[in-house]
Amino acid sequence: MTNPTAAMIVIGDEILSGRTRDANMFNLAGKLTIHGIDLLEVRVISDKSSEIIAAVNETRAKYDHVFTSGGIGPTHDDITADCIAAAFNVEIGIRDDAKNILATNYENGVDDLTPARLRMARIPDGAFLIDNVISKAPGFSMDNVHVMAGVPSVFNSMIDWLLPKLEKGAEMISSTIRVDLPESIIAEPLGVIANKFPHVSIGSYPFYEDNKHGANIVIRSTETILISNVETEIKSAFKLQ
Amino acid sequence: MTNPTAAMIVIGDEILSGRTRDANMFNLAGKLTIHGIDLLEVRVISDKSSEIIAAVNETRAKYDHVFTSGGIGPTHDDITADCIAAAFNVEIGIRDDAKNILATNYENGVDDLTPARLRMARIPDGAFLIDNVISKAPGFSMDNVHVMAGVPSVFNSMIDWLLPKLEKGAEMISSTIRVDLPESIIAEPLGVIANKFPHVSIGSYPFYEDNKHGANIVIRSTETILISNVETEIKSAFKLQ
Repeated sequence: MTNPTAAMIVIGDEILSGRTRDANMFNLAGKLTIHGIDLLEVRVISDKSSEIIAAVNETRAKYDHVFTSGGIGPTHDDITADCIAAAFNVEIGIRDDAKNILATNYENGVDDLTPARLRMARIPDGAFLIDNVISKAPGFSMDNVHVMAGVPSVFNSMIDWLLPKLEKGAEMISSTIRVDLPESIIAEPLGVIANKFPHVSIGSYPFYEDNKHGANIVIRSTETILISNVETEIKSAFKLQ
Repeated sequence: MTNPTAAMIVIGDEILSGRTRDANMFNLAGKLTIHGIDLLEVRVISDKSSEIIAAVNETRAKYDHVFTSGGIGPTHDDITADCIAAAFNVEIGIRDDAKNILATNYENGVDDLTPARLRMARIPDGAFLIDNVISKAPGFSMDNVHVMAGVPSVFNSMIDWLLPKLEKGAEMISSTIRVDLPESIIAEPLGVIANKFPHVSIGSYPFYEDNKHGANIVIRSTETILISNVETEIKSAFKLQ
């Protein structure tokens, strides 16, 4: 059995300009690993419709799921919903279900829905709404593309609502062994072990700390038995107890 | 005049699995903004040669510069240099200049260069070396593709060495105005201002803090006069002093 695959598209000039450090990628990556969906690619792109449409169409054809963050608020630079409609070649308009959910956020209900607020009820035809417990304005799933807000608290709450509804794969389990030797010493014995276990992902992530080189060796598999076998080999190769 | 453009490719399963939170993207984005190079896309991809080769070829055709991070160490999972050679269809081998630089890192010089260490002297034909003041093993530039290590301290030092050698664009200056109103109130007046200044990038980034909605309005341009004109309009629209 292979796990479902996924890509993420982070929409936002503020990340590309270095003004904001993205948090949603790290959060989504961890949650998908636990759910058994393999995140294989992330793209950070600017708020430009041609770029958004191209990235959505390319990734939705290639992966089982695409998760997007950003660009679904009420302001002029929020163009994600329109781009999704364009990517799928469907109409987009204000939808009653989304409008009624939005209205619950305001004192006078639908009477408080200004044109700007109503922009957040514009949903591509055929999409399913994603709950937003934080600030009401919903996200949506259009086929295999899941469209969520960029504000981290809202993004996280939408993911927490959505993930239990998506098919689970096998959880990827990982184990990390710290070796206080430079990678150039570790490399050959580790290569031999990696060859011996072709179905286990063994990564070496060097660090440099207190003027000394070392590496974290990360062993990843859905099978705990394989992980412990590799752990044994690595500990023996580097004389760790 | 338009600024040079760039993409970044982050190579590493550890980011996609949620094990590590990437730091290089945020650092590079800030430095490129100051240098006047517009970062237009970032891709995070796995340690798989077909993916690396495809991403490099796609982005190097599309942007003036491509910066990569990760995968140039001595272990079996370090395949970036080979992928770059494959992407450019050139040979790769141990190069004397890289070998001599590496040798300075070890007590007995070249005699200490084990096969694993020598892997770090494998450079695609025609590439120029990038200095590594932290741990010697060099990065390289192959045409417009700049290949650097993933360890943040090494990545940063390589960028600091490389950037002054690349043509500068106009620095993108930004100014942020915090408005303590929900985006749905801000949206219409802000849209009018954005229409009036088509050459200024005006982004609205909502936040949710102490149960209240607000937004940071980010004004970006290479011209300080345009920024201050937009600031004046925004302050007047939202009655800020």
